[in-house]
This record gives sequence, structure tokens and C-alpha cells, in this order.
Amino acid sequence: MSSIQRIGSHPRWSDIVIHANTARWVEVAADLSTDFSQQVKQVFSQIDETLAELGSQKSDVLQIQIFVANLEAITELNRQWDKWVQAGQAPVRACLQAGMAGNCLVEMLITAAV
Amino acid sequence: MSSIQRIGSHPRWSDIVIHANTARWVEVAADLSTDFSQQVKQVFSQIDETLAELGSQKSDVLQIQIFVANLEAITELNRQWDKWVQAGQAPVRACLQAGMAGNCLVEMLITAAV
Amino acid sequence: MSSIQRIGSHPRWSDIVIHANTARWVEVAADLSTDFSQQVKQVFSQIDETLAELGSQKSDVLQIQIFVANLEAITELNRQWDKWVQAGQAPVRACLQAGMAGNCLVEMLITAAV
Repeated sequence: MSSIQRIGSHPRWSDIVIHANTARWVEVAADLSTDFSQQVKQVFSQIDETLAELGSQKSDVLQIQIFVANLEAITELNRQWDKWVQAGQAPVRACLQAGMAGNCLVEMLITAAV
Repeated sequence: MSSIQRIGSHPRWSDIVIHANTARWVEVAADLSTDFSQQVKQVFSQIDETLAELGSQKSDVLQIQIFVANLEAITELNRQWDKWVQAGQAPVRACLQAGMAGNCLVEMLITAAV
Repeated sequence: MSSIQRIGSHPRWSDIVIHANTARWVEVAADLSTDFSQQVKQVFSQIDETLAELGSQKSDVLQIQIFVANLEAITELNRQWDKWVQAGQAPVRACLQAGMAGNCLVEMLITAAV
């Protein structure tokens, strides 16, 4: 069995779990009191921080599954995505509308190579 | 190519598919006639059974993507989750509201190391 | 670190990303002006094309996460699924209702061994 590495262990979840050269994690904005645009901005910034922590970079992101609370927000999501993503090295992407608890307006599940 | 192992092959899906030291499976309650609380209880019990079948344990669970039919049910989900999860060895977790067929009120996608 | 291979790089996403003997990709119908039945038909046909491009086959598909815009459409989805899937070699499957942008009525996230 490959070993498992965890970064950021909380009682309810781990921030990042690494196994078989693959890191998995979930990002929601640290400050959920902000609007959608600010939540997306935070999430991308948090992904960058996580990648740095992993010693990985944007081009190591394999897949991002994006959930938004409101489909009308996709235009703003794409505007920020297009600035964030590394052209030619983009991950696989799915973007869906789903319900989220509290004031969470965007949630991303990230899979990256490490 | 790494070999693929299946456990529980049905015409429409396999119960578990294993590849590259990683097992993937989906759990919904075996008895969908029950309420949310009972469905969650069944799902956690079924995950434990699947882990035992794989020769894995809770600390091998890498990621759980939870879908609930009703966001108000998250309090009850978390109550049972907190009893089930192994502190310090928690997986990555996403929890979202999505529509499910029939009387299914909770569905979990599990990824675990084997 | 294992190397990463991309097939079909677009500014916003890659069509397929391969890492650690595992390919990940997302399929939505190429022609979204069609009805649900036609979109599903297209998606299965596109999966077959992608598998051929990867040198993989249906039995290499590990997991499919299906999102449909309308739960009533699941009967038609299952009808086509049952014809498409390779009995005894079926992947793990989750099927959920979620909101999708534009006229997209079905979206599938596929994980396959390569």
C-alpha cells in the first residue's frame, strides 16, 4: 500500500490528503461573509497557497470540479478563471450548480499531481 | 497499464473498482424507505463493511464527496459524521445538495487507498 | 513526480489530463441544441471516441459521475446506459441532478485507466 500524507488535520476533515502522487483537497472561501466575486477570488488565492505548500504549481492541477450556488454567477467565475488558469496547462474542469450550506457560494474540489 | 479489480459487478455498475492502489465506490442506503437519519446511518455502516472487505480502514479513506437531498439535513449528517470519522485521520470532504432519484436522500462517493 | 499528459488543450480547460496511469475528462454533448436523449447519445459516442484516442476501452472506465438537469430524464439515461455499458465490466456510477449552464442537460465526469 502506498503511504498516505495529510496536511491540515481537523476533527471533521483534512485540508489535503496525498496518496499515489496525487493530492486531493476542497476549497471554500476562508471568509464566507463576502459576495460571490470575493469568494471566488479567495478560493483561487487559497489554491495558489495550497499548491505552494505542496511544492506544486498550476500546471500540476489535474482536475477541478466547481460547484456554484447560482448559475448566473458563472460569467464572473469564468472571468476570474481565465485570468487564473495557465493557458496550455489547464486542468479538466466541470462546473455545476449545487446547494451549499450557510453563505458558501462556491466550492471547488481539486486533484493535483505532487 | 495497471490492472483493474472489480468487486460486486452488476449490469449497471460495479460496487467497487480498484486501480493504481485506489478504490472508488458509491454508497446509498440499502434500504431507501427510511428517513434521512437512518439512511446516513446505513451509509456509514456500509462504508465500514466495504473497508473491511477491501482490507482497508477508516484512515485509508482519502476523499468523500457527500450529496444530500436537503441542506437542512446537514446538522444530522455532521452529528453522525463526527461520531464516525477517525479524528486526525479524516478524509478530504465536500458536502453539497443535489437532486437524487427516488427516495434517496444521501449519496456518498468514496475514494480510498488499498 | 509522475509526468502529466494533456490531450486537447483549450484556454479554459484541457479535454483530457492523464497522470499516474489515470485519465480524467468531462463530456458534455458537442451539440447542445439537441434534446436530452440526443445529448446523452452524443456523450456516450464522445466517450467511445475518447477511449479510442487513449487506446483504452469501456472496461478501463473506473468511475462515471453523471449530472443531469432533470431527474425525470433518468429513465432515458438508464435506457441508453444499459445499452452502452459493458456488462461485468461496469464502472462505479453516481447519478445526480445539478444545475448546468446554457442548454446543457447532461454532463459526465469520467475516470479511466490508461
